[in-house]
Amino acid sequence: MWITYPGDFEIWLGNRFNNRRTERGAMFPPFWKQDSHYVTVEFSREYVLPEAEDIEILCEGRFNIMLDGKLQFGQPKTFHVPAGRHKLNLKIWNQETPCALYIKGNTIETDSSWLATFEDKIWIDENGVAHGSGIYVPASTSPYFQKAEERPSLFHLATRPMTPVSSCECDGGTLYDFGKETMGLICLNAEDRKGRVEVYYGESREEALDHERCETLDWVELDGNGELTLDSKAFRYIHVVSDVEGLEVSALYEYLPFDMEKSGSFECSDEELNKIWEIGAYTMDLTTREFFMDGIKRDRWTWSGDAIQSYLMNYYLRYDLEAVKRTIRQLRGKDPVTAHVNTIMDYTFFWFKSVLDYYEYSGDSAFVTEMYPRMDSLMMYVFGRLDDEKMAVGHFDDWIFVDWVDFPMRKRGVMAFEQILFAKALETMTICARIANDSTGKYARLYPKVRKLIEEKFWSNSAKAYMHSMEDGVLNTMVTKFPNMFAILYGYADEDRTRQIMDNVMLNPDIEAITTPYMRFYELETLAMTGHHDIVTREMKSYWGGMIKEGATSFWEKYVPSEKGVEHLQMYGRPYGKSLCHAWGASPVYLLGKYYLGVSPQKPGYKEWICRPALGGLRWIKGSVPTPYGHVYVELNDEELYVRSDGGKGTVIINGHTATLDGKQEIKISLR
Amino acid sequence: MWITYPGDFEIWLGNRFNNRRTERGAMFPPFWKQDSHYVTVEFSREYVLPEAEDIEILCEGRFNIMLDGKLQFGQPKTFHVPAGRHKLNLKIWNQETPCALYIKGNTIETDSSWLATFEDKIWIDENGVAHGSGIYVPASTSPYFQKAEERPSLFHLATRPMTPVSSCECDGGTLYDFGKETMGLICLNAEDRKGRVEVYYGESREEALDHERCETLDWVELDGNGELTLDSKAFRYIHVVSDVEGLEVSALYEYLPFDMEKSGSFECSDEELNKIWEIGAYTMDLTTREFFMDGIKRDRWTWSGDAIQSYLMNYYLRYDLEAVKRTIRQLRGKDPVTAHVNTIMDYTFFWFKSVLDYYEYSGDSAFVTEMYPRMDSLMMYVFGRLDDEKMAVGHFDDWIFVDWVDFPMRKRGVMAFEQILFAKALETMTICARIANDSTGKYARLYPKVRKLIEEKFWSNSAKAYMHSMEDGVLNTMVTKFPNMFAILYGYADEDRTRQIMDNVMLNPDIEAITTPYMRFYELETLAMTGHHDIVTREMKSYWGGMIKEGATSFWEKYVPSEKGVEHLQMYGRPYGKSLCHAWGASPVYLLGKYYLGVSPQKPGYKEWICRPALGGLRWIKGSVPTPYGHVYVELNDEELYVRSDGGKGTVIINGHTATLDGKQEIKISLR
Repeated sequence: MWITYPGDFEIWLGNRFNNRRTERGAMFPPFWKQDSHYVTVEFSREYVLPEAEDIEILCEGRFNIMLDGKLQFGQPKTFHVPAGRHKLNLKIWNQETPCALYIKGNTIETDSSWLATFEDKIWIDENGVAHGSGIYVPASTSPYFQKAEERPSLFHLATRPMTPVSSCECDGGTLYDFGKETMGLICLNAEDRKGRVEVYYGESREEALDHERCETLDWVELDGNGELTLDSKAFRYIHVVSDVEGLEVSALYEYLPFDMEKSGSFECSDEELNKIWEIGAYTMDLTTREFFMDGIKRDRWTWSGDAIQSYLMNYYLRYDLEAVKRTIRQLRGKDPVTAHVNTIMDYTFFWFKSVLDYYEYSGDSAFVTEMYPRMDSLMMYVFGRLDDEKMAVGHFDDWIFVDWVDFPMRKRGVMAFEQILFAKALETMTICARIANDSTGKYARLYPKVRKLIEEKFWSNSAKAYMHSMEDGVLNTMVTKFPNMFAILYGYADEDRTRQIMDNVMLNPDIEAITTPYMRFYELETLAMTGHHDIVTREMKSYWGGMIKEGATSFWEKYVPSEKGVEHLQMYGRPYGKSLCHAWGASPVYLLGKYYLGVSPQKPGYKEWICRPALGGLRWIKGSVPTPYGHVYVELNDEELYVRSDGGKGTVIINGHTATLDGKQEIKISLR
Repeated sequence: MWITYPGDFEIWLGNRFNNRRTERGAMFPPFWKQDSHYVTVEFSREYVLPEAEDIEILCEGRFNIMLDGKLQFGQPKTFHVPAGRHKLNLKIWNQETPCALYIKGNTIETDSSWLATFEDKIWIDENGVAHGSGIYVPASTSPYFQKAEERPSLFHLATRPMTPVSSCECDGGTLYDFGKETMGLICLNAEDRKGRVEVYYGESREEALDHERCETLDWVELDGNGELTLDSKAFRYIHVVSDVEGLEVSALYEYLPFDMEKSGSFECSDEELNKIWEIGAYTMDLTTREFFMDGIKRDRWTWSGDAIQSYLMNYYLRYDLEAVKRTIRQLRGKDPVTAHVNTIMDYTFFWFKSVLDYYEYSGDSAFVTEMYPRMDSLMMYVFGRLDDEKMAVGHFDDWIFVDWVDFPMRKRGVMAFEQILFAKALETMTICARIANDSTGKYARLYPKVRKLIEEKFWSNSAKAYMHSMEDGVLNTMVTKFPNMFAILYGYADEDRTRQIMDNVMLNPDIEAITTPYMRFYELETLAMTGHHDIVTREMKSYWGGMIKEGATSFWEKYVPSEKGVEHLQMYGRPYGKSLCHAWGASPVYLLGKYYLGVSPQKPGYKEWICRPALGGLRWIKGSVPTPYGHVYVELNDEELYVRSDGGKGTVIINGHTATLDGKQEIKISLR
């Protein structure tokens, strides 16, 4: 298989991915530093060969090869390794694409047992002895780069032809309707005829026909050399305007293949909820690409706060761990850290949390060890910006996001919301430090201090809630749902306080409502966690069901039930600014898996797991949750609970019943 | 003109340059981290236009253009800018080569008044207002990238045809002699005939004919498509072996053009010294390339300790400030700092000193301001490795070089030599902090402390010299020339101590001799500084004159007068391991300019300068030293001193006479 330096492929691919965003024909790169792969990487391994063998060498980049420390001539395609103990070192230089190596012999094969370094750091002591003191890490591999022809630089999503469900001539061109929201590449073919073609993309018919204001478009010249394939775009409709005779328009659906066998599922007695789950799954499939994308039309960058929600949904849908790792690596980039992740302080903290989530759902400690040095250096950036009390305070150049809110809310000073996220990041570091054998204890020391400060500074016994912020020594006593629900979600509010927060904040109609699906994800999770499934079911049906009634074929960036017609399309002051396929719109996939089927890991990688299912007012539910062992399958109705597991030690809890499963087992619990 | 992000071009070119080193056909990249240019860079400027104009846009990379914050369609080749105040932002993405921009209009033109950033870091506050808090720096320009067709990615050295002075058939091939050491590209042409050609390079006839052991070679296949030009190599001889009929072999001399008008010169009554100066100049011209190179045959990397000597010679020869800036930028690379420059602690300190030297010889404070953030972060790396007393101690993965020595010399612990270099680096930072408006004062505070510690710890009143080192609290009382001569060179030894060091160390035959031209550079400078020109003249004639007598056409990496014949070719345990063209071999060019013509800057950029000429036992000397104003021309014999200056305020000192020149002036001083 091909090996690369960990993170290099993702950083390189991330630049292609993020720079593919366009705004009305203009390239639109991100606002933050774009890193690059290491342009020179050395790979090495020692072998003990019972007999000599010839190896085949494939490289992305120019390279040299050393046998037992001796440089060999040229860049051989095959190489003879004698019997016995031998060390191979291959050093690759590649400015354009990640340095990648593929070696295949009888016993010698590149894999993660090879070491990689970007700096062998040879130095010579006073006795003339050479020392190599580079830092070596296990080389990175990928299921996508298993064969010789699967060169990392050639990585691309899969495509398959798709055809419009209808087309019509209008407004001086042809309008194609693909029947539902999709993402793909438009192909134009007029054989040897030349001429200009204009393609206007629309998630709605209105957008495709509004040439002056649609969000994405292509103006191209056919050069008479046959088919031209355009860059991938999101659309349901396209309006093609051209004088080129006999122009043929076709399309390729572009997607990341997933394993249906491995996927999660959900079905229930309510057809509307089933439809919601299906459209949520399709929304996730459209936004699960090279990386987890927020919205497929307009935004198309990786965003940490959006991605962590995608990861969680993914654990209950496709369980594509590679996509999670790719996105986590890409978002982190490289040192030096010059800004928060996506420039947003909360997104830095979510990034840490996402590593912990990944570890819990996958049990993959090797990835934690790989990421730890970059977690550590990102945390050093955070530490460099704490205030004297070690609280995370927003600096001038920090974006403090929290949420888009329609009410006045200060985002300066020391905010309770940010401290709770910071505490979770520190808790993550405390756990990951153990895994990565960092014995400095710096995180374990700070974490409880920050937890204590949060309680002392922000909890109000009179308001029975966490206050908003401290600014210049003055407490801002505003109460919002944000810090309060995260205190519950992250397990920082005990049972008493959880009850108080639910009564005084989360279920209190006087508290400002959350209006974005982004934070509704957490709001609904809080309700489900605290047993308010009835409210969650009702909300899903009215909010997501409402979108379906408006004709949604994927879930939107935002939905305001009171809006009518084309009002649904507008956002950010632009008539088609809203994304009609946005990952955070798919949260029912997560909620139904985690809080209805009720399955989640209790020990990393589902070594131990829990199943605490709930009908939430439905007559019956059934479905499966992916785990490293296979699935946990759950069927529940008023009369009976059936759980089947492929592995791990499970605890099933329902209505005061508790049962355990160990390994591949099934259980039925009568609820009559 | 073309603009780039400062340092990006050099870092990118440096990878090409350093990776071009080969060892018997194998690519040989450096042992330290190779950085990369920023792959996404934004350039911006505001203009007030009296009338509208059309601009021409050329870009290396994909780009977008914003007018007054609004993204424009596509990647236009021309663009209309209306009259009035307008802001242009162009954002470029280029993975392969540095992001570069060229704009030409009536008034709008890219130059160093444009700003560059690798991160615009846009963030949005709670009121929905967008802030850009990127760090903007002046864009980088170059005399090499003035015209549209002079794209930075196309940069290459100049070439001109050269022909061998003789050729002969021998050892199954043809041996070509180019008459003197040279560097260039071999061109092979057999028209449409195919076949294998072997080229063996030799700085000596012996090396070219020794196929098994010569340092560089090429084995290529002619594919029948006409001429094949090989990568540049160093050679005097080449041995070409091939069965291809009618094979024509030609060569291109490859060089960095220099300005003869701007160059320094030297002539004197001694023909041998004149020859030494000329061969020194040729050695410098061969090693002054994309960057200052140490040796043109074997090594071909940039090395900080070698480069600082090249810079100094260059100030007295070609005064090519661009070449100095390129090499300083390349050697520094990018953050994060993961190793000392070239992994060598002394080379880090020399790197700092080289910025100060550059500033003194050029007066270019803009370059200091450009480099300051990377000086600061490199110094933070140094600070992170100091011991409790703030002394620079070698860590396990530091190469402590000092010099190649033939006697036992510990290179561990706190070494006096390293502390003196560290002090100079701190002094440099103190001066540069002022220029770059860093008001933290951290360097100004530490510098005197380190100076004081050096005196307290290492100066011995009994030995009248600086001791070698402190290791585990124990003073190593060995006395070597290294710390002692640098204390004089860097002005840290006062007049008394200087005299004591000269008597007890530098002129003391019991102290171990320096054998490398690398440290002899400093040794001879110390002698010249302290008025021992007679010794310097004698040494130059015997050491460099000796090489010429051995047939040198450029100066060598090392010369041991006692060696005979092919013994002169060997080094590092290899029969042709020695470089016969090594920059540090050219030090007479520097010594004759600075200590015989006697000219050096007293205030940055020769605003004030001094001329303290010395005959050093010669009957007459004459020559010129380049300055930003033109030259200082000096003629001296026993009877008269003539000095002519093109600018700056000069003080001429000779035999107790002192005279001053101001601006374009000349002066004659009678010495009778």
